Amino acid sequence: MANVQAFAKRSLYYLKQLQWRCLSSTVLSHMSKSPLLFDNVELASNRYDIQRGNFAKATQQDINYFKDILSSQSAVITDAEELIGSNTDWLQVVRGSGPVLLKPENTEQVSKIMQYCNNRNLAVVPQGGKTGLVGGGVPVFDEIILSTSRMNNVIDVDKISGTLVCQPGCILQELEDRLNSDNFILPYDLGARGSCHIGGNLSTNAGGIRLVRYGSLHGSVLGVEAVLADGTVLDCMSTCRKDNTGYDLKQLFIGSEGTLGIITKVAIALAQKPRAQCVALIGCNNFENVKQVFSSARKDLCEYLSACEFMDSKIMSLVENHLKLTNPVQTSSFYVLIEASGSSEQYCKTALLDFLETLIESKVIKEGIVADNSVQIKDVWALRERVLEACQHDGYVFKYDVSLPLRVFYNIVDDLRSRLGSQAKSIGGYGHIGDGNLHINITCEEYNKQLEKAIEPYIFEWIGKYKGSVSAEHGMGFIKRKYMNYSKSEAAYNTMKGIKQLLDPKGILNPYKTIPDQY
Amino acid sequence: MANVQAFAKRSLYYLKQLQWRCLSSTVLSHMSKSPLLFDNVELASNRYDIQRGNFAKATQQDINYFKDILSSQSAVITDAEELIGSNTDWLQVVRGSGPVLLKPENTEQVSKIMQYCNNRNLAVVPQGGKTGLVGGGVPVFDEIILSTSRMNNVIDVDKISGTLVCQPGCILQELEDRLNSDNFILPYDLGARGSCHIGGNLSTNAGGIRLVRYGSLHGSVLGVEAVLADGTVLDCMSTCRKDNTGYDLKQLFIGSEGTLGIITKVAIALAQKPRAQCVALIGCNNFENVKQVFSSARKDLCEYLSACEFMDSKIMSLVENHLKLTNPVQTSSFYVLIEASGSSEQYCKTALLDFLETLIESKVIKEGIVADNSVQIKDVWALRERVLEACQHDGYVFKYDVSLPLRVFYNIVDDLRSRLGSQAKSIGGYGHIGDGNLHINITCEEYNKQLEKAIEPYIFEWIGKYKGSVSAEHGMGFIKRKYMNYSKSEAAYNTMKGIKQLLDPKGILNPYKTIPDQY
Ligand SMILES: Cc1cc2nc3c(=O)[nH]c(=O)nc-3n(C[C@H](O)[C@H](O)[C@H](O)COP(=O)(O)OP(=O)(O)OC[C@H]3O[C@@H](n4cnc5c(N)ncnc54)[C@H](O)[C@@H]3O)c2cc1C
Ligand SMILES: Cc1cc2nc3c(=O)[nH]c(=O)nc-3n(C[C@H](O)[C@H](O)[C@H](O)COP(=O)(O)OP(=O)(O)OC[C@H]3O[C@@H](n4cnc5c(N)ncnc54)[C@H](O)[C@@H]3O)c2cc1C
Repeated sequence: MANVQAFAKRSLYYLKQLQWRCLSSTVLSHMSKSPLLFDNVELASNRYDIQRGNFAKATQQDINYFKDILSSQSAVITDAEELIGSNTDWLQVVRGSGPVLLKPENTEQVSKIMQYCNNRNLAVVPQGGKTGLVGGGVPVFDEIILSTSRMNNVIDVDKISGTLVCQPGCILQELEDRLNSDNFILPYDLGARGSCHIGGNLSTNAGGIRLVRYGSLHGSVLGVEAVLADGTVLDCMSTCRKDNTGYDLKQLFIGSEGTLGIITKVAIALAQKPRAQCVALIGCNNFENVKQVFSSARKDLCEYLSACEFMDSKIMSLVENHLKLTNPVQTSSFYVLIEASGSSEQYCKTALLDFLETLIESKVIKEGIVADNSVQIKDVWALRERVLEACQHDGYVFKYDVSLPLRVFYNIVDDLRSRLGSQAKSIGGYGHIGDGNLHINITCEEYNKQLEKAIEPYIFEWIGKYKGSVSAEHGMGFIKRKYMNYSKSEAAYNTMKGIKQLLDPKGILNPYKTIPDQY
Repeated sequence: MANVQAFAKRSLYYLKQLQWRCLSSTVLSHMSKSPLLFDNVELASNRYDIQRGNFAKATQQDINYFKDILSSQSAVITDAEELIGSNTDWLQVVRGSGPVLLKPENTEQVSKIMQYCNNRNLAVVPQGGKTGLVGGGVPVFDEIILSTSRMNNVIDVDKISGTLVCQPGCILQELEDRLNSDNFILPYDLGARGSCHIGGNLSTNAGGIRLVRYGSLHGSVLGVEAVLADGTVLDCMSTCRKDNTGYDLKQLFIGSEGTLGIITKVAIALAQKPRAQCVALIGCNNFENVKQVFSSARKDLCEYLSACEFMDSKIMSLVENHLKLTNPVQTSSFYVLIEASGSSEQYCKTALLDFLETLIESKVIKEGIVADNSVQIKDVWALRERVLEACQHDGYVFKYDVSLPLRVFYNIVDDLRSRLGSQAKSIGGYGHIGDGNLHINITCEEYNKQLEKAIEPYIFEWIGKYKGSVSAEHGMGFIKRKYMNYSKSEAAYNTMKGIKQLLDPKGILNPYKTIPDQY
């Protein structure tokens, strides 16, 4: 925690001595496993108003074929017990009944599977780490599950140009650990790092906590190899940072949630691992101040700013109550987490302290704490990163992940509170304010259709009115696709349909996902 | 220039007092106009082996219709004299005979033009600032020229979220000037800033000198509105930094050189204008040292690094001889320009000086100079940015813009020198080494087919062998498209064709560009 002696010299009177009561170094990687059991989740085909597509059903003969081409027995799973997990999504709101889980090891096997499925008209759902939050990576009916969990080789780390080439099933945390030892980091990071796969990250165009610094995956992914619905291997691999030789096809696979092809290889530009990192947690009285903190951070921290997250008091209390984590600053209406990082510990910390001092002097904030060693930094981050887990403990979660202009950003939460009243157990807002990305979590004891109707489409209409995004970073998957029209034009919808038809004429790749049946 | 007093204290003995003999503050914006005359450029239909597509020819009736919908007389140019410029590209290697130049003012007019041309089967070439270097923005035969020069309104600058919304015809330099006053910069910059349009920049996925810091346009463009070949207005506008609601269609228009649609509106995320900026120019004895300078810069300057450019001695001598600019460092085999920028002048400069000191101590470099006021910074940059202009003065330029892995990066230049011998007047290498992007300029007295044959396809085979890119940032346009196969797979080629067919079934949008007729 902040070296109070040193801060005193700079008269940073607001930095109080911290009581890290029960904040211990949390093993963050554990949190990305879904915390509850799977067996009582209602089947999607019952819960939702949805019709099965006109696909074939997998037969024993099909399964035998898969066993043949995948050679290893453990690569073809049909055991009902084992399949439950792969059929149910992380949030436990979508459950399918996929009869078989395939675990190919390489591109060639994926290509053979797809060629076969396309001929047989069998539907396929690609599955990565299964941490997606919109039900995109699990079957809705009886799709075949194609998991990338065994495609987890690092192919190359080029230390001069700073590029990584790997298979899609590499787990984010494992990649990060390996790269860190060469002083690189991936240009993105997210709370699900312990389970999510890089292939899943690309397929969802994952945002996360470093976007404010390093930008989106559309900018940092250098190459993609994808297997199309008919088994064609589309090689768009490259490790060049610049390559303008025709249409940038790899972009199509970033964020298309496995509906256009299966990503089988990835090349990505790495960022230099900053030598120094400090994190401040700040309490704010109102949302105006939160906005001021952010815009000052952009201006004053400039090149040092590497994350800017916020949470409201409701969310903080869920984290405190359900996970027994300690909030180290005075109880406030809002909390902002600011991370600064860079090549020099001294400059980076001084910049952060100067920034905080200015905020105090201009009365934008009252107090804050600064964490500057890795244990403490982890502890502060845990407060923000374990929010979803805390909400899951609160009951059934209606989860929204939206972009809104900052001028109306938090109004939607206030508005939902007055609209829903006591129907909801709790309504909290948090997220990546640095990217204009708000997460709204509404909890209730158990899945409640009436509450859902009170929220939807109201919430999407609200967002549409302000030209926000009804899915900022999680994607459309199964549960959000029908709201696409609130963020996309009809011409865009038609063009998407055209592209889907071009790359997957039979529609076998992740059906019921991403693009709604009608606008 | 470096405050020598202050540096002496830090014993930076290598920083010599500079003689800025004739280096004056160059008006960089002038250099992006093509320096020579247009009237003796051979018609593309004669120079190149190319067949006219089966399009209609514009009639007087068509011209009357255009006059009708564009209302203003000066928006429909048919005067032969005036048309010469619009028919000839910057490098003066492609010249068409487009019979009419249209200058619409808004999306609706563009849509009407395209709807009409699609019905009439008239081919159209979109034209921005006409600084493209691959003949993409001029007619090859008699295509109608659609210029964005009158679509130059800034629609919105959001100072809180840091976003710009504008029409495509805004000139880069003018945007930059306007944004600077609000302490923002565009996340890219290039030497052609005085003439190029933001729409042209997106259409070519321009790279430039800030890519090493802010990444590519695929990451920073937030929204695009494009008019398709049949006049459909495809609205993919958004100012959200995150929006995962379906396929990211705007990406298709970034780098597709006007072959899929005409960009009529742009939204882009801005970067904070750094308060401080310093530039070092360093001499290196060999290319190994250049690489070391770059990889140390990534590591040591980390968040401060905002540009890393290089040029060889041949290029420097062209700049000195033709433009009478002064090279302020000792004559060396290679020169590296490093720019550091950030929020604090002191930190930024100290970081740069520390970095240089380390390089001196480890004997990677012998000397360098540091410029830290805006006039001097401009002067140093002029050495790098006016290279193309200097080469144009040397004669006809065969220009290659390639990506290569750093381990073989400069070998290609040495190799070409021994292959071409005295056939070429000069062979020089320079470019954005921070992005693995090499420009190779080969000059001769005038266009010379034999020399061309000695270079091509040899140079592309070389690049293909090392999995580089045959067009790093300039695109394929007309003159590079036939070499696509050296950087792209056949499956990728077929998919591009499919997308072209989907969005422009008649092929009227910028024919003869980007995608070759066969693989
Ligand atoms: C605790 C927690 C925190 C999170 N934080 C963030 C966050 O900050 N930012 C964010 O953006 N998301 C976040 N998420 C959501 C989730 O982690 C991301 O969407 C992640 O990218 C999904 O990766 P995955 O490997 O788990 O993919 P899965 O859930 O398995 O699949 C996601 C989608 O991608 C498809 N897919 C997977 N692999 C492939 C492939 N190889 N080829 C083609 N399609 C494929 C699936 O079909 C599915 O549609 C969080 C989730 C949790 C549980
Ligand atoms: C001195 C100099 C330095 C340069 N430095 C760089 C550099 O560092 N990096 C770099 O990447 N390039 C560089 N270039 C190349 C050039 O400047 C870029 O390609 C630039 O982006 C072209 O913009 P423009 O407006 O001039 O487009 P144009 O040349 O007019 O057109 C380029 C292509 O885009 C299409 N197009 C233009 N506007 C639209 C639109 N609104 N909708 C659809 N299609 C459109 C055209 O049909 C054409 O195919 C340089 C050029 C010069 C002369």
